[in-house]
Amino acid sequence: MTALSTVLSTLDSGLDDSLSRLFELLRIRSISTDPAYANDCRKAGEWLVRDLETIGFSASLRDTAGHPMVVAHHDGPSADAPHVLFYGHYDVQPVDPVELWEDDPFDPAQKTAPNGRRIITGRGSADDKGQLMTFVEACRAWKAETGSLPCKVTILFEGEEESGSPSLKPFLEANAGELKADFALVCDTGMWDADTPAISTALRGLVGEEITVHAANRDLHSGLYGGAAANPIHILTKVLADLHDENGRITIPGFYDGVDETPQEVLDVWEKLGRGAENFLADIGLSVPAGEKGRSVLELTWARPTAEVNGIFGGYTGKGFKTVIAAEASAKVSFRLVHKQDPQKIRAAFRDFVKARIPSDCSVEFHEHGGSPAIQLSYDSPLLVKAKQALSDEWPNEAVMIAMGGSIPIVGDFQKMLGMDSLLVGFGLPDDRVHSPNEKYEMSSFHKGQRSWARILGALAD
Amino acid sequence: MTALSTVLSTLDSGLDDSLSRLFELLRIRSISTDPAYANDCRKAGEWLVRDLETIGFSASLRDTAGHPMVVAHHDGPSADAPHVLFYGHYDVQPVDPVELWEDDPFDPAQKTAPNGRRIITGRGSADDKGQLMTFVEACRAWKAETGSLPCKVTILFEGEEESGSPSLKPFLEANAGELKADFALVCDTGMWDADTPAISTALRGLVGEEITVHAANRDLHSGLYGGAAANPIHILTKVLADLHDENGRITIPGFYDGVDETPQEVLDVWEKLGRGAENFLADIGLSVPAGEKGRSVLELTWARPTAEVNGIFGGYTGKGFKTVIAAEASAKVSFRLVHKQDPQKIRAAFRDFVKARIPSDCSVEFHEHGGSPAIQLSYDSPLLVKAKQALSDEWPNEAVMIAMGGSIPIVGDFQKMLGMDSLLVGFGLPDDRVHSPNEKYEMSSFHKGQRSWARILGALAD
Repeated sequence: MTALSTVLSTLDSGLDDSLSRLFELLRIRSISTDPAYANDCRKAGEWLVRDLETIGFSASLRDTAGHPMVVAHHDGPSADAPHVLFYGHYDVQPVDPVELWEDDPFDPAQKTAPNGRRIITGRGSADDKGQLMTFVEACRAWKAETGSLPCKVTILFEGEEESGSPSLKPFLEANAGELKADFALVCDTGMWDADTPAISTALRGLVGEEITVHAANRDLHSGLYGGAAANPIHILTKVLADLHDENGRITIPGFYDGVDETPQEVLDVWEKLGRGAENFLADIGLSVPAGEKGRSVLELTWARPTAEVNGIFGGYTGKGFKTVIAAEASAKVSFRLVHKQDPQKIRAAFRDFVKARIPSDCSVEFHEHGGSPAIQLSYDSPLLVKAKQALSDEWPNEAVMIAMGGSIPIVGDFQKMLGMDSLLVGFGLPDDRVHSPNEKYEMSSFHKGQRSWARILGALAD
Repeated sequence: MTALSTVLSTLDSGLDDSLSRLFELLRIRSISTDPAYANDCRKAGEWLVRDLETIGFSASLRDTAGHPMVVAHHDGPSADAPHVLFYGHYDVQPVDPVELWEDDPFDPAQKTAPNGRRIITGRGSADDKGQLMTFVEACRAWKAETGSLPCKVTILFEGEEESGSPSLKPFLEANAGELKADFALVCDTGMWDADTPAISTALRGLVGEEITVHAANRDLHSGLYGGAAANPIHILTKVLADLHDENGRITIPGFYDGVDETPQEVLDVWEKLGRGAENFLADIGLSVPAGEKGRSVLELTWARPTAEVNGIFGGYTGKGFKTVIAAEASAKVSFRLVHKQDPQKIRAAFRDFVKARIPSDCSVEFHEHGGSPAIQLSYDSPLLVKAKQALSDEWPNEAVMIAMGGSIPIVGDFQKMLGMDSLLVGFGLPDDRVHSPNEKYEMSSFHKGQRSWARILGALAD
């Protein structure tokens, strides 16, 4: 038997133990965006440090201004082995509205889904705790069977990915020498479908903004003042409604600067993937593509920028009714960026767009929530070729090269600050409900994900 | 000394005692719109029954499907004395955002305002506990000095005015014989200014609607779905932004049916009152009239209909940021009606307007929150003439006939169901912050309000 085949057998026979470890991690309520869970975030980091030490990593929890980082090092078999930096995040999204969860989001379980597939339930099962543990389990099996790892491995787990990663850049800057590797492995992306692994070669960027419109100096009775006093909800809804024209195009001046039209041959490849508007939207109960007219849903989510209102609130929002004109109203707005769009220019153009629509006796306040450019990786690196083969060996179908609608700012930071390309491989599925109630991770993603990383580590060492 | 002058002296010397009684009532947290305060509503009703019994009223608490009514009767001095029905409400608005109150909303106090005037602070001080107690105190003084009241008096206090009065019509219907009087006295309106009493002869009607737009069957990750999936906040903001055109006119088809232009001579009288946009808006920190262009603020708030969004909510509204596309978004919308606008037609037209703007794969849900037509009272009744003289005798300036932007549906119900006109007299001031944090009632409103009712009761008996 080759070393790889014994490693794979070890992963097969150790699946139950690896699930127990994952469930321990999933039970920790590491919601990074809510300060009430700061201690839980630290606990998740501590748990990972202890677990990595059992595999022979030299691991430590490293404090930041926010939640701590986990950094771990494992020497490879020899000085000339390739050096990889693996990145994941141990923090999770908030769970509200919690009443929509079928199971306790922090009491993970295995169960059979209505479609007959085995799944792992719980917040973070797919994003990103389940994913990062596929890599940790692959390392554990290599170490158990060969006494070492095929490559030199550095691990970086952060705890602020779901809240804009405020500490990440300063940490990379301060520890560039320690973290620099030949390339990065990033496991926060998805499969094409349950049988088809995927490598993501493009990612959209993100700009987040919170705006608050202020009108009168207090809440007003709508009977006494209605019809004469400015209503900040009206101002806000006009601004937000103006963001898109009747064809779904974003109307902010200069917004499309740096956006390229996707080449027809790329569109053709995507077309062949067979995911049109019908099957893409049917799963979420919709049928009409909502964005720019005349483009496929894959183009809309992979290669076109967006403006989305992620939250809005103002006035009386409790039970019953209150005839009030609010003093202020707020919205959280995010932009997904593609190609060469500049996050800072987009932010400035949006703010100008809003300010131009605020009446002279009202005012508006802005709060910045993160910003990162889009990423486009090169198709021709040996890294990509080896990983594609390893994945194709593991799964029923050959691996495909796709794009991702989401943002993984770390990939840009690795490129810009550490001069490293990233290999984006993950095992999530489109229906994993990440960021939503009833998040799940497929058992096959967890099990074959471990095997995939074992294969990739082996292939990279060749 | 005449009977009236001894009654007025009694009110002057009893002011401190009357304040103690008012404060007892203000301490009861009778928020009708929130079911958590149902017991407090009942306590406020019980307090009033006990207090009215001490004045010789035959008073009782009468259960309804919601909060109970207080009904009390006092025979007049003789069978041919006029019979008045006095109406007020003991329920109050919610107090949120409670952090904006300078003082505990339910621990009333007297203090001196920055402008040097004495005020009474607390939720309900002006709307409507302070106002209804001006009448109760006037009755108490007449009873103490003369052994009876100048008129036959029936009192009706409800506990659901701030939540759409759902039990009121059934109660009026079931008790029409008991409640019918020669006319009604309604004390839920305001003065023109601190020196000038007012009688309100027109009131705007109200239609309240809550709408919820449903899109995807769950909350979505804006990276994975943004640009292709419908965002219900976008749909909602488009609908709400469409409600007004660039001139502030409401665009719902048929909305202005039944709206008359106000005669020039009436506009001239209002003009002479000297409250232009500048001083009307300056007090609330604004300067630009926000409604229909080319009309005065008094016309806008007294004689023009409105559409106001009173609350909006959808998506992630907590701290930080969440890149989510919500499954649903909601708004609370109210319309102020004038003249002959039909509440049911307005409601139906609004719903059609919304439905026409919902994409075919999304849906919308409506909840009704009350509806009442506008009221226009006749100028030539002897009732008005007597009341105007009594008010002019009490206050520094002569009483003026005005309109009100707010809605008092009971006035329409009295007219329609009991065949009674209403005399709308109250002592609130525009800066009382009713429905807002830091509600107050002027000490002069409370004291001279009592004296005003004492005079009006005397005048009506003549």
